[in-house]
Amino acid sequence: MRTIEWRDDGVYIIDQTKLPRKLVMIRCKDHNRLALAIERMEIRGAPAIGVAAAMGLALVAKNSKGRTLDEIKERLNRASERLRATRPTARNLFWALERMRKVWEGATDPSDLVNNVIREADEVAEEDVRMCKAIGRNGATLVSDGDRILTYCNAGGLACVEYGTAMGVIRSAFESGKKIFVYAAETRPLLQGARLTTFELKSEGIPFKLITDNMIGYIMQKGLINKVVVGADRITRRGDIFNKIGTYGIALMAKAHGIPFYAAAPTSSVDLSVKAEEVIIEERKPEEVTHIANVRIAPEGVDVLNPAFDLTPGELVSGIITEKGVLYPPYNLSGLLGQGH
Amino acid sequence: MRTIEWRDDGVYIIDQTKLPRKLVMIRCKDHNRLALAIERMEIRGAPAIGVAAAMGLALVAKNSKGRTLDEIKERLNRASERLRATRPTARNLFWALERMRKVWEGATDPSDLVNNVIREADEVAEEDVRMCKAIGRNGATLVSDGDRILTYCNAGGLACVEYGTAMGVIRSAFESGKKIFVYAAETRPLLQGARLTTFELKSEGIPFKLITDNMIGYIMQKGLINKVVVGADRITRRGDIFNKIGTYGIALMAKAHGIPFYAAAPTSSVDLSVKAEEVIIEERKPEEVTHIANVRIAPEGVDVLNPAFDLTPGELVSGIITEKGVLYPPYNLSGLLGQGH
Repeated sequence: MRTIEWRDDGVYIIDQTKLPRKLVMIRCKDHNRLALAIERMEIRGAPAIGVAAAMGLALVAKNSKGRTLDEIKERLNRASERLRATRPTARNLFWALERMRKVWEGATDPSDLVNNVIREADEVAEEDVRMCKAIGRNGATLVSDGDRILTYCNAGGLACVEYGTAMGVIRSAFESGKKIFVYAAETRPLLQGARLTTFELKSEGIPFKLITDNMIGYIMQKGLINKVVVGADRITRRGDIFNKIGTYGIALMAKAHGIPFYAAAPTSSVDLSVKAEEVIIEERKPEEVTHIANVRIAPEGVDVLNPAFDLTPGELVSGIITEKGVLYPPYNLSGLLGQGH
Repeated sequence: MRTIEWRDDGVYIIDQTKLPRKLVMIRCKDHNRLALAIERMEIRGAPAIGVAAAMGLALVAKNSKGRTLDEIKERLNRASERLRATRPTARNLFWALERMRKVWEGATDPSDLVNNVIREADEVAEEDVRMCKAIGRNGATLVSDGDRILTYCNAGGLACVEYGTAMGVIRSAFESGKKIFVYAAETRPLLQGARLTTFELKSEGIPFKLITDNMIGYIMQKGLINKVVVGADRITRRGDIFNKIGTYGIALMAKAHGIPFYAAAPTSSVDLSVKAEEVIIEERKPEEVTHIANVRIAPEGVDVLNPAFDLTPGELVSGIITEKGVLYPPYNLSGLLGQGH
């Protein structure tokens, strides 16, 4: 089963807000519905929202058959702006939009343009699967028999097309026969760890326990884990990691215990153009904090903070696992992407 | 309003599992109901459960009028065993039971015994109020105008009889006119921060924001707080702190940022008789992790870890605030309690 799929009558996504209680698909007939799905986090995870953006543009192309070249380009540009405005932090969204734009910008024939845009979106999705498997293989070399691994949020198949980044590493190690045990932290406010990562671990038959986020210091102190593997929504040239809020604290605690802390992500999460302090950390609505599963937990009128991501400086990251290999500090990611970056 | 109160027809406690949505009192007619209330965390917080245990024994005494001396002592001993078995980690429960036992053990007259036991329970409660105010005054000397303070779980009036320990420090500083701002972390699994601390801060008019536990690293990195004040359920001779799960991680992160980390507690939380590794950390039922407000958040059949406390080594604690003054590392708490300990 794929997180996102192109079908004849639309783009189908798993509604991740309903998991694990219900496994429902949403049919998105146009890019607006996909943009909404990204905003509502019905689809989430840096690689998956990149794919969703690409497929959103493919829907625009598909629905533009018979229009003139300029009309189609204009529609694609507008759709691209709509998709760009959904969420600010993960790199892959902007990466996918830029990649798609290159396909239509130089086009001279409307029918070729439509076909090429649809084909490119398909390639973005297929490439994600291949990249995640390569990340998994590369990361699995860091995992030993008997390892007890903490993972955070959901950097699994549900955050990608099907295989996962951090979870790709865990799956690959497990599939190769290594005996591992996973701790999944629940990841407030939206509980992607409790809802999604446990769902995937259970489906794969990988042994694990669920903990609350504030138990991470405890399991490190007790020696219950010896490795941390998380995903990354954006990575700077110097190996600074933007990932789900809470990641930075985990990295600090891992350092204090001498536990290796790895981030796994495709190179489409790498952004050579920004410094860490320039990245916008999305602030989401207060109800995510004051409510859980639609139940109010805090008194009325309480002020909250709700940043969705935080910054883990590269010096706290023991290794960055990509589809092209594992990088170690001190980081300079320029070489990784080759020329043109 | 008091968290726990002795009245003619029983011991009244605020049902803390219902806050902040409903403010309801529970009438406890005997020590068994109070023991159940401690287990269910209808009453919680180290000082408050000490008072609840003392009042439970006072109910036994009151309901034993007309019995022989031996019968009453036997009933008190049995009740003491029941109360002792409720929760293993906080020191104050055992401290209160030992203090009460001294009252009845040497008694020679049944009517004196009953009166003295009831009077002692009352004194345990009144002393808590005085101690918390002294903790507040002592701690407030560490708080400067403009401070932004992180507190955790609920070490407020609801954890005590009425004034609070960590919250006593915050209240005292605020009442003395210092401009302060508080960040309250929600404290999974039972959300005492989101439900109780916010409730108290709001009632007092102290400005604050609520955050999830995994935002603590972020607010430290952004310079949003410059002090941490938490409670403590048990403190060893060397200043090791047992407190709500997650406290240890906060102390590690505070150290990494050079932010002072204070624990506030009455000396009845001090236990000179144990080493840190001998303290039993209560493991609570899995449903507290897999459910929030009775809503299941994790898939069926998921294994969890649910320790209710963790250990913060004394070397991470910048100061211990007690009713007798503030202590600084390296800690030796023997002197604090005087002879006989």
